[in-house]
Amino acid sequence: MIRQASETLTVRAARPGLHDFTDRVVDWVARQGMHEGLLTLFCRHTSASLLIQENAAPAARRDLEAYFARIAPEGRGYAHDDEGPDDMPAHLRAALTQVHLSIPLRDARLVLGTWQGIYLFEHRHVPTDRMIAAHLIGV
Amino acid sequence: MIRQASETLTVRAARPGLHDFTDRVVDWVARQGMHEGLLTLFCRHTSASLLIQENAAPAARRDLEAYFARIAPEGRGYAHDDEGPDDMPAHLRAALTQVHLSIPLRDARLVLGTWQGIYLFEHRHVPTDRMIAAHLIGV
Amino acid sequence: MIRQASETLTVRAARPGLHDFTDRVVDWVARQGMHEGLLTLFCRHTSASLLIQENAAPAARRDLEAYFARIAPEGRGYAHDDEGPDDMPAHLRAALTQVHLSIPLRDARLVLGTWQGIYLFEHRHVPTDRMIAAHLIGV
Repeated sequence: MIRQASETLTVRAARPGLHDFTDRVVDWVARQGMHEGLLTLFCRHTSASLLIQENAAPAARRDLEAYFARIAPEGRGYAHDDEGPDDMPAHLRAALTQVHLSIPLRDARLVLGTWQGIYLFEHRHVPTDRMIAAHLIGV
Repeated sequence: MIRQASETLTVRAARPGLHDFTDRVVDWVARQGMHEGLLTLFCRHTSASLLIQENAAPAARRDLEAYFARIAPEGRGYAHDDEGPDDMPAHLRAALTQVHLSIPLRDARLVLGTWQGIYLFEHRHVPTDRMIAAHLIGV
Repeated sequence: MIRQASETLTVRAARPGLHDFTDRVVDWVARQGMHEGLLTLFCRHTSASLLIQENAAPAARRDLEAYFARIAPEGRGYAHDDEGPDDMPAHLRAALTQVHLSIPLRDARLVLGTWQGIYLFEHRHVPTDRMIAAHLIGV
């Protein structure tokens, strides 16, 4: 019988950039005891986002962070800067990446590839806790 | 018992840019009477897209529109310009944003954050009606 | 009664760029015999991605490929180049597009618009087989 599970994962973003929380997700999914289904993660913020990326090379993460800092830079005279120079670029970087991820579950495992990790992409400078809604449906 | 609901929402895009249709989505979801589930929205076009963004500051929307106009500009001598200079940049901006959104439903509410709105991002100049397929599964 | 189906589609990417595999997806979905549901495709790689795009004009595909080659170019002195100059730009282009697609199924058909095709976006030069996980839930 198909059933569902829902949770809110709180991910600490102590600095801007990519934060791997794959283990948290894998653990929560494992505890639901399903073997086939669909996981959806949803970031409840507009100045942080989600990304599936290469999980082996720290240099790849630094390149990614530098790239988004370059194509959506701070301090360009945005009309919207209520919360400072990192406010509007945060929204732009969120728009360019993902607010949600959906990952099938098969044989009781997420079908992530060998080199794929699940990241919170924090775009603001102030350390903060981010809420990621998790939803699983399956058997 | 898990069940489904499907609908097509028609969103009027009278001008290019971001069009908030959060209320339409929230209303349709509420009418399905579910309390836990997963909503998926799918944009049936390649020159418009979907975005979850900051719903409070009009300046943020203007900055977003200006940003995408800058990184995927009109009139750069694209090979594909069958429908005019706004044809190919529309496809590029759609590729950089989202064709679909998935949002969990919990306690009979979408888990949207306080500042998150659901937007149609229209990339063409001619006013048009856009079809957004909505699918809800849950209890 | 709601049920699920899961499969891995292997898509051959003989060259970098966009590879249309809509027919493969449509065929697999049709064989599951459902009339209402939700399809999710998930790319199990970090140097290839998924995209829904214009399926009629070859020029649009060439423009798209040229655009991503321009905004995330090879040979810019990335810190991460373990696998060559096309390694890091591949991750960037994947981050800018989609790792997963969700498409509702209605009246036994995916709700793809007339001009929408499903593409694997290959970012590496070496010809390779890419694994796309497919998950369908519905009735």
